[in-house]
Amino acid sequence: MKMEKYPLKRTSSSSTSPISPTYQSVNKKYTNYSSRAIYTPTDEMIDISTSATGDVISRSPDNEDGLQYTVSFGAVQDSTEIPGIGQYDDFHTIDWQRDIARDRMRHRYLVKKKQDSIWNLVEGAHDAWSGWLCVLLIGLCTGVVAGVIDIGASWMTDLKFGICPEAFWLNQEQCCWSSNETGFDSRNCSHWYTWAEILGQKSDGFGAYTISYIFYILWALLFASLSASLVRMFAPYACGSGIPEIKTILSGFIIRGYLGKWTLIIKSVGLILSVSSGLSLGKEGPMVHIACCIGNILSYLFPKYGRNEAKKREILSASAAAGVSVAFGAPIGGVLFSLEEVSYYFPLKTLWRSFFCALIAAFILRSINPFGNEHSVLFYVEYNKPWIFSELIPFIGLGIVGGIVGTIFIKGNLYWCRYRKHSKLGKYPVTEVLVTTVITAIIAYPNRYTRMSTSQLIYLLFSQCGISNVDDLCDYDRNFTDVNSAIEIAEARSGVRSAIYLLVMALVLKLIMTTFTFGIKVPCGLFIPSLCLGAIVGRIWGIGMEQLAFYYPKNWMFTGECSTGDNCITPGLYAMVGAAAVLGGVTRMTVSLVVIMFELTGGVRYIVPLMAAAMASKWVGDALGKQGIYDAHIALNGYPFLDSKDEFQHTSLAADVMQPKRNELLCVITQDSMTVDDIETLLKETEHNGYPVVVSRESPYLVGFVLRRDLNLSFANAKRMIEGICGQSVVLFTNGNLPHNLGPPPLKLKKILDMAPITITDQTPMEIVVDMFRKLGLRQTLVTHNGRLLGVITKKDVLRHVRQMDNEDPNSVLFN
Amino acid sequence: MKMEKYPLKRTSSSSTSPISPTYQSVNKKYTNYSSRAIYTPTDEMIDISTSATGDVISRSPDNEDGLQYTVSFGAVQDSTEIPGIGQYDDFHTIDWQRDIARDRMRHRYLVKKKQDSIWNLVEGAHDAWSGWLCVLLIGLCTGVVAGVIDIGASWMTDLKFGICPEAFWLNQEQCCWSSNETGFDSRNCSHWYTWAEILGQKSDGFGAYTISYIFYILWALLFASLSASLVRMFAPYACGSGIPEIKTILSGFIIRGYLGKWTLIIKSVGLILSVSSGLSLGKEGPMVHIACCIGNILSYLFPKYGRNEAKKREILSASAAAGVSVAFGAPIGGVLFSLEEVSYYFPLKTLWRSFFCALIAAFILRSINPFGNEHSVLFYVEYNKPWIFSELIPFIGLGIVGGIVGTIFIKGNLYWCRYRKHSKLGKYPVTEVLVTTVITAIIAYPNRYTRMSTSQLIYLLFSQCGISNVDDLCDYDRNFTDVNSAIEIAEARSGVRSAIYLLVMALVLKLIMTTFTFGIKVPCGLFIPSLCLGAIVGRIWGIGMEQLAFYYPKNWMFTGECSTGDNCITPGLYAMVGAAAVLGGVTRMTVSLVVIMFELTGGVRYIVPLMAAAMASKWVGDALGKQGIYDAHIALNGYPFLDSKDEFQHTSLAADVMQPKRNELLCVITQDSMTVDDIETLLKETEHNGYPVVVSRESPYLVGFVLRRDLNLSFANAKRMIEGICGQSVVLFTNGNLPHNLGPPPLKLKKILDMAPITITDQTPMEIVVDMFRKLGLRQTLVTHNGRLLGVITKKDVLRHVRQMDNEDPNSVLFN
Repeated sequence: MKMEKYPLKRTSSSSTSPISPTYQSVNKKYTNYSSRAIYTPTDEMIDISTSATGDVISRSPDNEDGLQYTVSFGAVQDSTEIPGIGQYDDFHTIDWQRDIARDRMRHRYLVKKKQDSIWNLVEGAHDAWSGWLCVLLIGLCTGVVAGVIDIGASWMTDLKFGICPEAFWLNQEQCCWSSNETGFDSRNCSHWYTWAEILGQKSDGFGAYTISYIFYILWALLFASLSASLVRMFAPYACGSGIPEIKTILSGFIIRGYLGKWTLIIKSVGLILSVSSGLSLGKEGPMVHIACCIGNILSYLFPKYGRNEAKKREILSASAAAGVSVAFGAPIGGVLFSLEEVSYYFPLKTLWRSFFCALIAAFILRSINPFGNEHSVLFYVEYNKPWIFSELIPFIGLGIVGGIVGTIFIKGNLYWCRYRKHSKLGKYPVTEVLVTTVITAIIAYPNRYTRMSTSQLIYLLFSQCGISNVDDLCDYDRNFTDVNSAIEIAEARSGVRSAIYLLVMALVLKLIMTTFTFGIKVPCGLFIPSLCLGAIVGRIWGIGMEQLAFYYPKNWMFTGECSTGDNCITPGLYAMVGAAAVLGGVTRMTVSLVVIMFELTGGVRYIVPLMAAAMASKWVGDALGKQGIYDAHIALNGYPFLDSKDEFQHTSLAADVMQPKRNELLCVITQDSMTVDDIETLLKETEHNGYPVVVSRESPYLVGFVLRRDLNLSFANAKRMIEGICGQSVVLFTNGNLPHNLGPPPLKLKKILDMAPITITDQTPMEIVVDMFRKLGLRQTLVTHNGRLLGVITKKDVLRHVRQMDNEDPNSVLFN
Repeated sequence: MKMEKYPLKRTSSSSTSPISPTYQSVNKKYTNYSSRAIYTPTDEMIDISTSATGDVISRSPDNEDGLQYTVSFGAVQDSTEIPGIGQYDDFHTIDWQRDIARDRMRHRYLVKKKQDSIWNLVEGAHDAWSGWLCVLLIGLCTGVVAGVIDIGASWMTDLKFGICPEAFWLNQEQCCWSSNETGFDSRNCSHWYTWAEILGQKSDGFGAYTISYIFYILWALLFASLSASLVRMFAPYACGSGIPEIKTILSGFIIRGYLGKWTLIIKSVGLILSVSSGLSLGKEGPMVHIACCIGNILSYLFPKYGRNEAKKREILSASAAAGVSVAFGAPIGGVLFSLEEVSYYFPLKTLWRSFFCALIAAFILRSINPFGNEHSVLFYVEYNKPWIFSELIPFIGLGIVGGIVGTIFIKGNLYWCRYRKHSKLGKYPVTEVLVTTVITAIIAYPNRYTRMSTSQLIYLLFSQCGISNVDDLCDYDRNFTDVNSAIEIAEARSGVRSAIYLLVMALVLKLIMTTFTFGIKVPCGLFIPSLCLGAIVGRIWGIGMEQLAFYYPKNWMFTGECSTGDNCITPGLYAMVGAAAVLGGVTRMTVSLVVIMFELTGGVRYIVPLMAAAMASKWVGDALGKQGIYDAHIALNGYPFLDSKDEFQHTSLAADVMQPKRNELLCVITQDSMTVDDIETLLKETEHNGYPVVVSRESPYLVGFVLRRDLNLSFANAKRMIEGICGQSVVLFTNGNLPHNLGPPPLKLKKILDMAPITITDQTPMEIVVDMFRKLGLRQTLVTHNGRLLGVITKKDVLRHVRQMDNEDPNSVLFN
C-alpha cells in the first residue's frame, strides 16, 4: 500500500484549539449534518497519516473563506508518541460503512464548494471524472504490461530451443516470418537455428537431439532459478497466483505491500521467467494480480480512491476484470469473473467501469498484437459443422470427467501445499522450484505435445483437421482436393493412434506436475494448465466419438445428422468443451467460465455445449468437495474471508458469539465518570480497536462507540495543549458539564464519539448477523438486550464462529 | 398472485393448546434455535392463509413422530373475524430478512429430517433440486410461449397484406418457400395473394393500391381494438411494457394479480394483436412481463418459492432473464439485463440459475425456429471489413445523437403520459388506441420502410450491400461479378438518395408515433422501436461517411485503410451502432446493452464501437435528464421503488425522518402492563403493521417488535380457547408471571414477539439508513437513543423522505 510514499505536503501550522483546531470551521461548511454527525471527527482523523519519517501530513486547500481543511496536531514532531495513527493497520479489516460515508461527505463538500469559484468547479469536475480516468489509465497500463509479458515470454520460450542469429530479439515465428519463407508450418525455416545447429551439429541425429535436450533443461533451470530468486529476494508476495489473496483484500482486508510496486515489477519479470521455464503453469492468475497492483498504484494518483480503502476496492475490482481481459482477450468474461469470483462489493457503477477498463486493456493488447495473430481471440476456432443435439450426452459426460479431474487436482494440490506448509520443504522454496523445473523439463522434452508451449498445445487440440493441419492428430484416411472441400468422416490412421498415446502421457504428466507446481514460490497460475488438461481429455473423447460415428453411422445418436458422409463430429469442439469442464471443476466458475470460453474461441454457437459441460462439472465437483481451488487456498492460508456465497446454516444466536463470554467483564467506557488515567489503563490492558461508551456501569445503556486510535490521539494532544488536563481529568462524552467539579477541568471528547454504531439484540440469529457483516461491511457490531449493552461481535468473532460451526479450527483465522 | 387458487387441503383438526397448538412440537424439531428464536411463531403463522372463501389452509405432512406441521386455529370457520391473515396484503412491502430466515429454517428442518426416512431423503433431494427444476420449466414454457407469439405475430402481420389461399395458416415467407420458387426476394411469389388480388384486381395500379391500403388500415384497426378490449375487459395489468412494475415487484413490493394467469394469457394474445396492428411498438418488454408471469405461476408448484415472497423473487429474476433471452435470442444479455436493470436482490446462485433459464428458453425458441432463420440470432450480420480506428469519432458522434434522441423521446413520452393521467384522455383508453392505430396506419402505409415490420426494417438497415441486396439502399455504382467478390467503394446513385429521403420520413414518423404509443393500454415495448430509430439514424450517418470516404479518400481519417479501393466504411455497422446508441439513450442500459447487441447481431468484433457509442449515449442522456424511461415511469406512477443505483446524497439523520414527529406519541406496547382491551383499542385506533414492545412507558427500553397480524390472530384464538381470558387479561411478553395477580389469568404472548428487530440510533445518518433498507431489505427499523426507543422508520417513510429531499411531492409515493 505504501501510503507513506505518496507525495506529501508538509505543514508547520500550529493552531491553538485543543484537540482538532479546525473541526469547528470544517463543521460549519458541512452544514447541518456534520454538526451533529458522528463521522466528522473520525473522518478528519483519517486524513492524518504519518510519513515514514514521522511527520504529520495534512491537506490544506485553504480558500478565501479561511477554511482550513487541514487537521494538524500542533507541534507534534514525533509520531512515535501517538501510536495507532494512520488509516488501518496491516492485517486489519476495513470498515466499509465508515469509508463510504467519508467519501460521501467529501463528495458533498466538493459539490458545495463548486459554486464558490471556477477552480473549485474544475476540482469538482476532476473528481467526477477521476474514476473513469483512473480505470482508463489502468486499462492502458495493464494492456501495455500484458503485451510486454506476452512478447517476453514468447521470445524466452523459444530461446530454450534456439535463436535467430540475424535478429536475436525475434522469436521463432517472427524470425521465420521475416525470412519470407511461406509454408504451412510457419515454425520451420532456415533462418532459425536450434542450439544444436549453432554448435555445428546436423539438425537431425542423436547428437543434435541430446544437445537440444540439455540446452532445454539448462535454460529452464536458469529461468526458474532467476524467477524464484527474484521473488525470494525482492517481493515474497509475488509468488503464486494471487487470486485468493486478492479475493481477501477485496473483501475488506489490509495486506500492506501485496499490491505494491515491487510486487508488480517482480511478478511481471518473474512471470515471464517462470512461463518460459516450461513449468506447468499459466500466466492468467498472476495477470489479475499484476492488474490489481497497477490499479492500486494508480489509485494513489486520485486521493478519492487512494485514501479511501472502500473506494479503492471499486478500482481494484475493475483492475481484476482488466487482468482477465488481457489474459484471455475476454473483456466481458473478465467483468463477469470479477463479479462472480473475485469481488465482494460490486455496485453497478463498478460494473460499467470494469467493463470499460477491461475493454481498454484488451484493445491496447490487441493493438500491440504480441502474438502476430490476426484474430483478436486467443484460440480462434471456426468449425464447419454445428453440433448435434444428441452430442449433449457426451458433452455432459465430459463435464462429469472434468469435475472429477478438477477435484483430483484440488485435493492433490491441497495435500501437497499442506505438506509444504508443515514440513521442512517450506524452508527451501528455491530448491523446490529447481527440482520441479528439472523434473518437468526432463519428462516434458521427449513428448512432442508437452515440449511445445501449453498455449500452442491448446490451440492444436482445439483446431479442426483441415487441409492445413499436418499434425499426427489429423492423420485420417481422406484426401483434400482444395481448401473449401467438405471434411468427410474418415478412419483414423496410425498417426492418430500414436498421437493419442502421446496425449495420454501428456495428460498424466501435466496433471501430476501441475499439482506439484501450483503453490511453488514463483508466479504461477492454473487457468492454462487446467484448460490444457481438459483439452487433452476432450480431444481424446472427441476422437473416440468420431470413430464411433464412422464405424456405427446407423446408431440412433448419429442418424439423420451424420448420414450424408460429412463429418458431423468435430474432435476440436470436444477439446473446447473438455477444457471448459476441467477449468470449471478446478475453479467452480460458471457464467464467467462460459463467457470466457466463447470469447476465447469466438464460438458463440457453442454456448449450450459449454454450458452443459460447465454445469455438470460444477455439480460433480461440488458433490465431491465443496470448495474451488481459490477458496480452498483461502481456507488453507486462513485468510479472514467471509464468503458471500456460502450460506450460514446454523442456529446460533448473537448471544453465543459475542465477546465477552459469561463471567468476563465487558470493557466499556462510561460517558462521564472515567478519568484520563482510567481510560489509559484500559487502553494499555486491552487490545481492542474500539470501546463502547455507556451511560454508567450500573445502567449500561449504549451511548456510542469510540476508536482506540482517536482516544490516543486526543489524549496526547489534549495533555500537550489544554492547560490543566492531567491524569485525573474526567473524560466527558456528553454535552453538559460535571455538576460539582472540584478537580482538574474535564476533557470533552464528544466529537470523537461515533453516535451511530450498528447494534443488534442478543436474540438475533447469527445468520442475520453474518448477513449484516457481509452486506453492510461491518467491522464490529454491539449486542444489546432491552437497550443494555451486553457485548461486542467483531468480524474476527464471526469468522471464528463460522469456522467452529464448520468443525474447523477456529484459530486458523489469521489474527485480525 | 392468486395465492388462493393454489390447491388447498382442508384440515379440521382441532387441538387444545391455547394459541398455536403445534408450536411446541415444531419447536422441538427445530432444536435449540427455534426454542429461543424469534422467527418461529411468525413463520408458522405465515403458513396460514385463507382461501377466497375464508377457509383456513394448512399443510399437514404428518409423519410418524406425530409431528404436526399444521398450524390450525381450531374450529375457526369464518376468517372475517381474523383480519390481516395471509402473507402480505396487496400493495405492501415484503420483509426480506424474515422471508429469507423462514426459508433457512425450512431448509434446516428438511436437512434434519433427511436422516429419518427414505421419503424424507427424497423430499430433501426434491427441495434441493426444485430451484433448478423450476427454472427449467420456466425456460421451457417461456420458449414455447415466445415461439407461439412470434409465429402468431408474424402470420397476422402478413395477414394485413394478403393471404396464402392454399394454406392460410402460412405467412408470406413460408407460403413462398413452400411454393419452391427461389429467388433473391423470397417475399414475392405467385402463391401469395394480396387482398387486391383476391378481390380480382391487378397487382399493380391505383385500384389495387387503394384496396390494399384500406385493407391494411382495417386489419390494423381490428387487431388494435381486439387487443385493447381484451386488456380492458380481462386484465388491466396486461397493458404497457411491464418492466417498471416488475422492477418494483422485484424490489419487494406486492401487486396482486400483476403476474397472474389472466395477465399472462391476455398479455400474450394482446401482444400478438398489437404487434400485428402495425403500431410502433415492440414485443420485448412485454416478453419480460410474460416470462415473469410464467415464473410466478410455476413457482407455486414449488412451495419453497411460491409461499415465500423473497425466494420467489429469485425465480422472477431468472424469468426476466429468460424473457429478454427469447425476445432477442440473447441469453447472456438477458442475464445481464436482469442483473443490471431489473433485479434488486441478485445472489450469485441466481446468476447461475438465470443463465440456465435464459439458455433453455433461447434453445427452445431456436428449436421452434419461428422465423425459419438458419442463424440463431435475430439480426445476424457479417461484415467483410473490420472497422478502422478513426471511425471511433463518428461512432461517438452517433452515441451523442442517440443520447439526444433518447432524451427527446423520454421527455415527450413522459409529457404525454402525464397529460393522459391528468386529463379526460385517460378515461377513453380504447378510443386512444384506435385513434393512434388509424393515424399510424394511414401514415405508415405509403412509406415502404414504415410499411414493412419494424424487425424487417432493422434487418435491412443492418445488412451490408452485397450482391443479393436489391433494395434502393444498395443502389450504388458498382458491379458484382460473383458472390465472393470484394465490395468496392462506390458512388451512391439516385436510389440511395430517395431511400434516404424515405428513411428520414420514417425516422420522424417513428419517433413521434412511438412517443404517443408507449403507454397506451395495449401490451407494448420499446426496444424494437428504439433500435429502429437508431438504425435509421445510423444508416444515414453511415452512408454519409461512406460517400465522404469515396469523395475524399485522401482525408486523414481514411488514408491507409481505404486506399486499396475496397469499401472500408460499412453503413450497416453504423446502423447497428446507432441502434445501440438510441436504445442506450432511452433505457440507460450499459453492459447488458452491448452484450445484447452483439448477441443480437453475432458481431463480437464490434464491441468497441458499440461500447463507445453506448457510453457516449449514456453520458449525454444522463446530462440531459437523469432517469431512463423505466425509472421515469416508476416515478410517474409513484411506485415505492428504492433505487439501488441512486446514492442518497443528503445530510439528514434518522431523527429527522422517524415517526412520530415531535409532540406526537409513539404507539408502543408495554411488556407486562397492558390488557387485551388496551391493545385492541390501540389496534383499532392505529393502522401500523406492527408495534414495538418496551419495558414500560416510563423506561421505554426496547424489548421486541410484534406484528398487528399476529396480535389479532392470538387474541381471537385465545379468547375462544383459553378459559378466563377476557378484555381485562394482562398481556405478558415476558417469561415470568405477574407478581400478585388478582384479576383474570394473563395472556402470554412471548412467542409471537420478534426479539431481534433491527435498531439504529437517532444520530445515524440517513445515507446509512437508506443503505440498510436497500441491502438488508428491511420493512421498518426502530430508532433508539441511549437504549430508549424514540420512534420507527418504515420503508414508506424512507421513500417519502427521499422524494422530499429531491424536491418532489412526498405524497406521490403509493400508499405502502
